[in-house]
Amino acid sequence: MALIVQKFGGTSVGNPEKIKNVASRVLGKKNEGNQMVVVLSAMSGETNRLTEFAMAMQKIPDTREMDVLLSSGEQVTISLFAMAVKAMGDDCISLLGDQVKIVTDSSHTKARIESIDTEKITASLDEGKVVVVAGFQGVDEHGNITTLGRGGSDTTAVALAAALNADACEIFTDVEGVYTTDPNMCNTARKIDRISYDEMLELASLGAKVLDIRSVTFAKQYNVPIHVRSTFTDTEGTWVVEEDKEMEGRIVSGVTYNRNEARITISGVPDQPGIATKIFTPISNADIIVDMIIQNQNTGEGTTDMTFTVLRSDYERTVKLLDSVVESTGATGGVQGSETITKISIVGVGMRNHSGIASTMFSVLANEGINISMISTSEIKVSCIIEEKYTELAVRALHDAFELGKDYVAVEETLV
Amino acid sequence: MALIVQKFGGTSVGNPEKIKNVASRVLGKKNEGNQMVVVLSAMSGETNRLTEFAMAMQKIPDTREMDVLLSSGEQVTISLFAMAVKAMGDDCISLLGDQVKIVTDSSHTKARIESIDTEKITASLDEGKVVVVAGFQGVDEHGNITTLGRGGSDTTAVALAAALNADACEIFTDVEGVYTTDPNMCNTARKIDRISYDEMLELASLGAKVLDIRSVTFAKQYNVPIHVRSTFTDTEGTWVVEEDKEMEGRIVSGVTYNRNEARITISGVPDQPGIATKIFTPISNADIIVDMIIQNQNTGEGTTDMTFTVLRSDYERTVKLLDSVVESTGATGGVQGSETITKISIVGVGMRNHSGIASTMFSVLANEGINISMISTSEIKVSCIIEEKYTELAVRALHDAFELGKDYVAVEETLV
Repeated sequence: MALIVQKFGGTSVGNPEKIKNVASRVLGKKNEGNQMVVVLSAMSGETNRLTEFAMAMQKIPDTREMDVLLSSGEQVTISLFAMAVKAMGDDCISLLGDQVKIVTDSSHTKARIESIDTEKITASLDEGKVVVVAGFQGVDEHGNITTLGRGGSDTTAVALAAALNADACEIFTDVEGVYTTDPNMCNTARKIDRISYDEMLELASLGAKVLDIRSVTFAKQYNVPIHVRSTFTDTEGTWVVEEDKEMEGRIVSGVTYNRNEARITISGVPDQPGIATKIFTPISNADIIVDMIIQNQNTGEGTTDMTFTVLRSDYERTVKLLDSVVESTGATGGVQGSETITKISIVGVGMRNHSGIASTMFSVLANEGINISMISTSEIKVSCIIEEKYTELAVRALHDAFELGKDYVAVEETLV
Repeated sequence: MALIVQKFGGTSVGNPEKIKNVASRVLGKKNEGNQMVVVLSAMSGETNRLTEFAMAMQKIPDTREMDVLLSSGEQVTISLFAMAVKAMGDDCISLLGDQVKIVTDSSHTKARIESIDTEKITASLDEGKVVVVAGFQGVDEHGNITTLGRGGSDTTAVALAAALNADACEIFTDVEGVYTTDPNMCNTARKIDRISYDEMLELASLGAKVLDIRSVTFAKQYNVPIHVRSTFTDTEGTWVVEEDKEMEGRIVSGVTYNRNEARITISGVPDQPGIATKIFTPISNADIIVDMIIQNQNTGEGTTDMTFTVLRSDYERTVKLLDSVVESTGATGGVQGSETITKISIVGVGMRNHSGIASTMFSVLANEGINISMISTSEIKVSCIIEEKYTELAVRALHDAFELGKDYVAVEETLV
């Protein structure tokens, strides 16, 4: 008998009929002899409806009360789900975040899970019940309701799987799994069967939307195997698991892109200690997140250029902020930038053991006539900033060059 | 500084704009130097929306899960209310039933309050906050969410007022208070300034809809003064308070009617011990509530007639049930009945000290040519069953006869 945690998102429970379908799917798995814990999000559309109400009340809604408000959404879906299971002749109990006791810190709207009490869940499972838990929500040490932020239900599911020592954590979504790249952009994109936590973390932080990044961090920390799969089919999806030899044989696992950033350059700043602080302190004080930073070589005239990226929505604000920085630093070249850039990245744990991957990427882009304006690398990824209009071209060229469209055959096997 | 509990129903908080109005009304009272505890219902329409979802899941929805579902409604209104207060520059905290700790028994959908922990509320009031509490809901000793049933928010408000030893409990509604009779039926109906708990209990159980009967029971038990008043005006409403000398001077306080009952007679049953049990046991086993019961005098032939009333919606079912009773008892007269009756009642604590009130009522009805088919009395009320078509006529005639349209002048005062 296995213990399985299944998480279904808002579109999977968007109306009564869909909730019934999920219930019958869960019972199918239970009837194979498994213990089932189900995590649900709010019905799709519900969070928007409630947020609109909140905005009508207060320009910037109070975060404690926002959590009270939004957490009502999952409360609705879990109770309806429990009714559906009971109507099908099985038994089920719904539990809210504070009923389980999913204890978090007090950072409302973006709380972190600190501990999970598994007693109630285990007791109900032992009574043969399906246990359905409200995703996205917890309770702080003072009894206040908290929420985990966007994608929080994924985190709830993985954290529950870790706490319960579950055999698997299945995340149901509207795609069939994790792809080598965006299938809408590249028709040779292939579903990945197995991917490592680290690769998934890079993909998630680089723009892949299939899994919330915090849930992957949690899964890695507690070594919880995640199975990302489709709500609408029975096909196997993608397993996100610990890195193994086979994965290291693959050089690149995926190509991803992110069009939400903008590039800013401040030129001719005096090349002296403390200059970076002078530039980035006001930006950070304004709660603007900086992603890539590149400081050019000293040009020989005692000045340097500083180039960095921010979220596209923060572009105008950042450029304005830099006016005073230009004055205070005496930067002679002023501020330039572009809102039409894309960050394109290749990710793969195999890069640790293979050299020349970055230069292959650069030459693939060069062959297509695509100019690279910034480069950033980590142990398992290379990212380049290019002009936005080349996004599709770059994705397809890299996907082809690293042969991601072909079925991967492990190197070890071919050597045998 | 007074401590005031104010309760607003679903129509008063039916949309964001209305919630803001309520918030500003509450702050007005707070700025007069009062501590404010506010109890809110779900937005009007919300309970129906959720109930429809539930019915789509399960024919008879599981009661535990129904409570989880429905309690989400108040969660929405209290968080929005707290935001509205904060937007107006004051401070506010929302508390759910289980956050306050309103502990109830485990009778889901109709739970009874067992205890209330006032610590969190008092601490927040001492910090100068408005405290807004979700009406209608509590938590049982196992941590399950419970609800108090229809009108439950009134009960929450009165129970909180009792536990907090509040100076007043104001119930805001869409009418201006408790009237001497239905103003839609009788244009001389007058708002009652002060009424006793016992009279209010009779009026509520006889069909007046302005206050939930359990909230009045609670108020009487803990001697909490209730002020029933309009959400839309500043006019004083009706105070429901302990009985006093002035009230005893009034003979009749109100005329009320109830068209939801039906009358059934089973005739020619053998007049012998145990016959009532034989008739009413199957009815009670079918969860049918019987209101009035009258057993006629023995007719001299060793048989008797039994007449009683049930809810009109239970009429057909009850008549069918009696078929087997007729057989088993050998009742020779069979079963007759009428679904078109009204129970018309007069209520007043003054009846305790005045005789002849019932006979005045009978003669008023007789003078209008209205036949009485059943009579039932208590210490402070007389009820008659009449044909439904005479309802308006009877209400107006009784209202006139007992001079309820005139301003009441206390007897004591006129004697001075």
